[in-house]
Amino acid sequence: MTLPMNRVTFITLAVRDLTRARDYYEALGWVLERAMDEVAFYAMNGSKFGLFTLAGLARETGREIADLKTGAMTLAQNQPSEAEVDAVFARATAAGATPVRAPFKTDWGGYSSYVADPDGHLWEFAYNPFSPLNAEGHIA
Amino acid sequence: MTLPMNRVTFITLAVRDLTRARDYYEALGWVLERAMDEVAFYAMNGSKFGLFTLAGLARETGREIADLKTGAMTLAQNQPSEAEVDAVFARATAAGATPVRAPFKTDWGGYSSYVADPDGHLWEFAYNPFSPLNAEGHIA
Repeated sequence: MTLPMNRVTFITLAVRDLTRARDYYEALGWVLERAMDEVAFYAMNGSKFGLFTLAGLARETGREIADLKTGAMTLAQNQPSEAEVDAVFARATAAGATPVRAPFKTDWGGYSSYVADPDGHLWEFAYNPFSPLNAEGHIA
Repeated sequence: MTLPMNRVTFITLAVRDLTRARDYYEALGWVLERAMDEVAFYAMNGSKFGLFTLAGLARETGREIADLKTGAMTLAQNQPSEAEVDAVFARATAAGATPVRAPFKTDWGGYSSYVADPDGHLWEFAYNPFSPLNAEGHIA
């Protein structure tokens, strides 16, 4: 079976406190699929989003916790309108995210914003009028 | 339109040298959708994978380059067999990735491996016998 290379099966964020991280994402509206002692999974469109303790990731990869850093990566979740960008930015900061860049008009004609989750992972909430989303919220 | 929260539209990795990063991912087999001066996009299953210069991400988010760190996040790309894990691990290291953990039997009954891409972003190549992939390589 030859599969396309353009695939990501899991996106897993390392978190200091799994309960705090779950509380944040579930307050935002993420629907849990399954949780264990050190990890929580959320089903997506043929892939999964995961939260994994820093200690667990360090052990799994053989790295030191001190070497595991955040911020040079963004996960974007597009929204169907500017108003929905404002709304999810407000929900995220209310749920414990740090505002990084309040909603702004982008130079490419869209509308965007950035927050850092409780562990410093960067999320963009954006509206792109040139890239409509289908009814499941995926790029059409 | 109310969309599910369990979605990621873009996964974007910050990279020091866009040409070097593109060379690495395209050597691995990623098929480019579109490239501009500071960014390159690769289409996936209703979402996109992106490479973005560190300078561009710093400017976009209003952060300092020195604050943008890697390693506390993994992207996993599952494979249909142990042999394919071995093969992609070899291809990745040949293409310039740093081996982090050579292919090993996991305690959950699978087979996994970790590499760091040229910018330090962690990728897992794994085989999970309990989570078959469909013909497009997505979790069924």
